[in-house]
Amino acid sequence: MLEFEFIKRCTGFLPGQAEGLSCGIGDDCAVIIGSMGRDWLISTDGYSEGIHFCREWMSPRDIGRRCLTGAVSDIAAMGGRPRYVTISIAVPPTISEKDAVEIMEGITSSASSYQMVVIGGDTTATLHDLQIVLTAIGDIRHGAALYRRGAKSGDVVYVTGMLGGAAVGLEVLKKNSGRGPVAREASVSRFLHPEARVSSGQWLADTGCVTSMIDISDGLVQDLGHVALAGGAGIVLSADAIPLWNGDSEVVDLQTACTGGEEYELAFTVDGLRDAAFQRLLPAVQGQLGHPITRIGSVVVGSGVVVRDGAGRDITPAVGGFRHIIGKGA
Amino acid sequence: MLEFEFIKRCTGFLPGQAEGLSCGIGDDCAVIIGSMGRDWLISTDGYSEGIHFCREWMSPRDIGRRCLTGAVSDIAAMGGRPRYVTISIAVPPTISEKDAVEIMEGITSSASSYQMVVIGGDTTATLHDLQIVLTAIGDIRHGAALYRRGAKSGDVVYVTGMLGGAAVGLEVLKKNSGRGPVAREASVSRFLHPEARVSSGQWLADTGCVTSMIDISDGLVQDLGHVALAGGAGIVLSADAIPLWNGDSEVVDLQTACTGGEEYELAFTVDGLRDAAFQRLLPAVQGQLGHPITRIGSVVVGSGVVVRDGAGRDITPAVGGFRHIIGKGA
Repeated sequence: MLEFEFIKRCTGFLPGQAEGLSCGIGDDCAVIIGSMGRDWLISTDGYSEGIHFCREWMSPRDIGRRCLTGAVSDIAAMGGRPRYVTISIAVPPTISEKDAVEIMEGITSSASSYQMVVIGGDTTATLHDLQIVLTAIGDIRHGAALYRRGAKSGDVVYVTGMLGGAAVGLEVLKKNSGRGPVAREASVSRFLHPEARVSSGQWLADTGCVTSMIDISDGLVQDLGHVALAGGAGIVLSADAIPLWNGDSEVVDLQTACTGGEEYELAFTVDGLRDAAFQRLLPAVQGQLGHPITRIGSVVVGSGVVVRDGAGRDITPAVGGFRHIIGKGA
Repeated sequence: MLEFEFIKRCTGFLPGQAEGLSCGIGDDCAVIIGSMGRDWLISTDGYSEGIHFCREWMSPRDIGRRCLTGAVSDIAAMGGRPRYVTISIAVPPTISEKDAVEIMEGITSSASSYQMVVIGGDTTATLHDLQIVLTAIGDIRHGAALYRRGAKSGDVVYVTGMLGGAAVGLEVLKKNSGRGPVAREASVSRFLHPEARVSSGQWLADTGCVTSMIDISDGLVQDLGHVALAGGAGIVLSADAIPLWNGDSEVVDLQTACTGGEEYELAFTVDGLRDAAFQRLLPAVQGQLGHPITRIGSVVVGSGVVVRDGAGRDITPAVGGFRHIIGKGA
């Protein structure tokens, strides 16, 4: 059973909403209504050895850093400010003390770089798999959180940064596995040391122009599919507009940029009526944020996500985003 | 390296306190200062197959329920009200869809019984080990949370419930493993369907008499050791006073009651000057709470935990509480 189907089956017996809750299951974070004009954002993410990371080609510190960045990215994708994190680490007997401590150092040093405080957690032994689960807690002005839902026909689709570099870096690491230190390609660094778009997310939430937002860690097309579904609309992306990452000797291809995942850029939609105003804000802010913000498509009546070339032909790449297989077939 | 040593090594580079935080690392929950007179309690706990539970002699629902109870118990041990929970479940290919869904049902039905709302989580594949991580979120009147620290010489030590039944039930299940359905001994039910002492914890926090509290899921002597250490004091328990569980045909022995763990009773200390008043409250409240509250010892100048018999001899059982071994020796 695929991850999404499993969640759907379980969601059937989960109470979705409750007193004091703006958003329960189904977005990057849950939103708990706070007071004094702030809401709390809560997100839990699990990372398994061999599924999300591999000790053969990632140092313990890199593993810790990447996990923390993934957790922070969920806060960024709601427009929030990261505040606290809890760490659960399950350590198998094949891991040395030194490595276990270095993973923790990777998590905590990365948390500090986002001004987050580690407030607790749990350390357990496990039989085989190294498993890291982080619960990130952020906050945001009451009512300002950006959800996956909210996109509607007439909105304009944007993305932060350049896409595909992390997926290329991952391939470089995999091919090099067991052959000693990897050449320090920029793409490798992009995979190993990603950055969550915290400042960008907060700025976007403050503009009042954004109708929905998501991080694209599972790939642009797959994650925008959640936005389309949640908004009850379709999304048409312009192939020529997708910002292709070009930090190594070659520019990445469209397929990789659209489906590669592994990076923590934000995709979002802007209200069509406010798009002109939003565009006027961009030239000044892109320099401050340190990355481009690119208009890549529009929200239309319909469903799903398609990528069109300059001649209007549908060239949607096969979705290769990340899907977990949960449990053997019953 | 033992779990406690690992945490100690990591704590060296963890910032303990921060703005907005009443308590960081080192207690059952972190305490975030809320507003409108409430504080938030946050606790993350991980459970690994083969370490914390075993599918050979626990049903998927029982696994889910026990994990949730463990998470809630940390809220109870601070005197809090359980509110929300996030679930991270890592599912290996050896687990069927049906079992994975039933674990989730066990967690969520148990959460409902504590009036908790499941607000999110994460589902991932893993290679070998079933791993469940729960982050429980509770709240409490500002400043009312009970910590491990706070016990001082002259305080009186109490415990809720009767001790040792869950450890006996676990042994029954282990011995019966692979031999079909187990006889429904009361001790087995005590292990499989424990109850977190939520009402008791809240009542105790409201009395204003309690100086420290902890749950004794790792065993009475081991967990009171944390209270002694955090309070910079010693604890002397009276062997004759320990409430020995007697639900099966035989009464459990002192060793099992003192070190068995696996159950979610609360141990706490009462200010010596308020103990007479506290004792006057007990007769009426024990009936409402549905379990005894027993005076078992006192806090003294010194360190550590000792158990004394009626003749004043030290008969402290070897500590057999739960300790995780983290990582192979470096």
